[in-house]
Amino acid sequence: MAQSVKVRVPGTIANCGPGFDAVGMAGTIYNYLELTLTEQPGVYIEVKGEGSGTIPDNEHNIAYQAVQAVFRKVGAEPCGVILRMENSIPLARGLGSSAAAIVAGLTAANALTGSNLSSEELLEMATQIEGHPDNVAPALFGGATISVAELGKVRCLRIDPAAIFTMVVAVPEFGLSTKAARQVLPKTVPHRDAVFNVGRAAMLVGALCTGNLAYLRYVLDDRLHQPYRQRLIPGMQRVFAAAVAQGALGAVISGAGPCLVAFTQHAPAAVGEAMVHAFAENGVKAHYLLLDLDRSGAQIIEEDNT
Amino acid sequence: MAQSVKVRVPGTIANCGPGFDAVGMAGTIYNYLELTLTEQPGVYIEVKGEGSGTIPDNEHNIAYQAVQAVFRKVGAEPCGVILRMENSIPLARGLGSSAAAIVAGLTAANALTGSNLSSEELLEMATQIEGHPDNVAPALFGGATISVAELGKVRCLRIDPAAIFTMVVAVPEFGLSTKAARQVLPKTVPHRDAVFNVGRAAMLVGALCTGNLAYLRYVLDDRLHQPYRQRLIPGMQRVFAAAVAQGALGAVISGAGPCLVAFTQHAPAAVGEAMVHAFAENGVKAHYLLLDLDRSGAQIIEEDNT
Repeated sequence: MAQSVKVRVPGTIANCGPGFDAVGMAGTIYNYLELTLTEQPGVYIEVKGEGSGTIPDNEHNIAYQAVQAVFRKVGAEPCGVILRMENSIPLARGLGSSAAAIVAGLTAANALTGSNLSSEELLEMATQIEGHPDNVAPALFGGATISVAELGKVRCLRIDPAAIFTMVVAVPEFGLSTKAARQVLPKTVPHRDAVFNVGRAAMLVGALCTGNLAYLRYVLDDRLHQPYRQRLIPGMQRVFAAAVAQGALGAVISGAGPCLVAFTQHAPAAVGEAMVHAFAENGVKAHYLLLDLDRSGAQIIEEDNT
Repeated sequence: MAQSVKVRVPGTIANCGPGFDAVGMAGTIYNYLELTLTEQPGVYIEVKGEGSGTIPDNEHNIAYQAVQAVFRKVGAEPCGVILRMENSIPLARGLGSSAAAIVAGLTAANALTGSNLSSEELLEMATQIEGHPDNVAPALFGGATISVAELGKVRCLRIDPAAIFTMVVAVPEFGLSTKAARQVLPKTVPHRDAVFNVGRAAMLVGALCTGNLAYLRYVLDDRLHQPYRQRLIPGMQRVFAAAVAQGALGAVISGAGPCLVAFTQHAPAAVGEAMVHAFAENGVKAHYLLLDLDRSGAQIIEEDNT
């Protein structure tokens, strides 16, 4: 049994426009977590990179809580624990940083306790901790995922998009809590808005599966969350328009925002600069990231058995 | 240029549960239409099989109207026209009989006037005549289709499900008009019901594309039309349950109903008998059809150039 393990987990883009609370994709931006079991009792947590200084380094740390959840589930009682996090995924931006931390903790702890839990069990546990599956599923499995809750159980289908594209992520300086972004959603919606999203979410998945990415031009619009959240993200529509003007297939809010993501097969840097410029014109300082689709999900990258 | 052409067009199953107004599939049940141009003026229409005696044999015939729409569009002015229809698709049951008639008329007239119209143009015309694209798209293209209206234009993506399954269609004796079935739908729906359908429609398409048909067990439920239409179809839930009890993956209303369709990979006849039996227990006489997925769509099967 290894005494130390290092895992890598991708950031994720949930919702993807019409696929609210269901569709997610993993991107090539990663958090690393090294978990070490020690003979001395105690908990030591170190956070480098994104969230250093703000992410708790005690029992409130969510990756640590995920580690503990695995220990409880499999009946392991390690003496002491060292957790080293090295984060590239920005916090509270809609890129699944908390989902990544949870999935990292679960994956590492599972590896160190004999890999007794299946990926379905890890998905179920991650969803319980996170509250919803749409970020944890792609963080765990990579690629694109569709998740639904069915009779209290999470069902997740992973798909491997048959095309290459870049996700251009405009990252504003301000953060947004998922809770705040949920509070602006209405209790009821027009039936035609529901139908609007149903067709587009279905076609989005069909376009990804078949590699007919040109169809993304028709399907990235949404009527279930983005119209309600745009007042929380100054300049949203203009940033979308700027991306499309540079050749992007379309643009959406990443998760609960405030990051905005454009999907493109051409000139990603020009798309990114146009998005940042449009944000600036609306008084929002931002930078951009160019992400490919991560097709691996959570990976164990080092194991130390000494 | 041919003087006579015979086309074959499949029946279709629209909505498919969560994919309301978007998803459709073609089944191996067909209407045939033979269109002949004559030197004597006049219109002669003959209808055999389903709808014989009720389908108009004059200018109100919808296949004839589709033929005329093509003639107008391409500027053709034929002297006389003979239309012979041989129908297997039952009428007003939710199996796309009117869509098939329209697509047959368009396809035949296009072939006889030099095939100047693209399939996208035929889809656009068919949608205009029918009022919505979800039956005409699979009738035209075969396989499974996802259709959305985007900025007044119909966009349709065809997918070729990577799995073999049978569609068991329980056909009740009574008919139901699409108009009546639309009138029971609400103007607004709970946001969570919209989200419920979005995830399931997305996963349905993913399951079809990847061939992971086991996922159909989780995704065929719907909250945007079926709960409202079940009072128009006595015993609906019991017919669904009877199909699943015989091993079907799930069951849905076909189009606007009243046909109910179960998807199964095992024992289709047993599923069909159970569905018919459950209908009978609710006072509804019915029979069943076993359909495979039609992957060809509208086909020209004979051309006579003499």
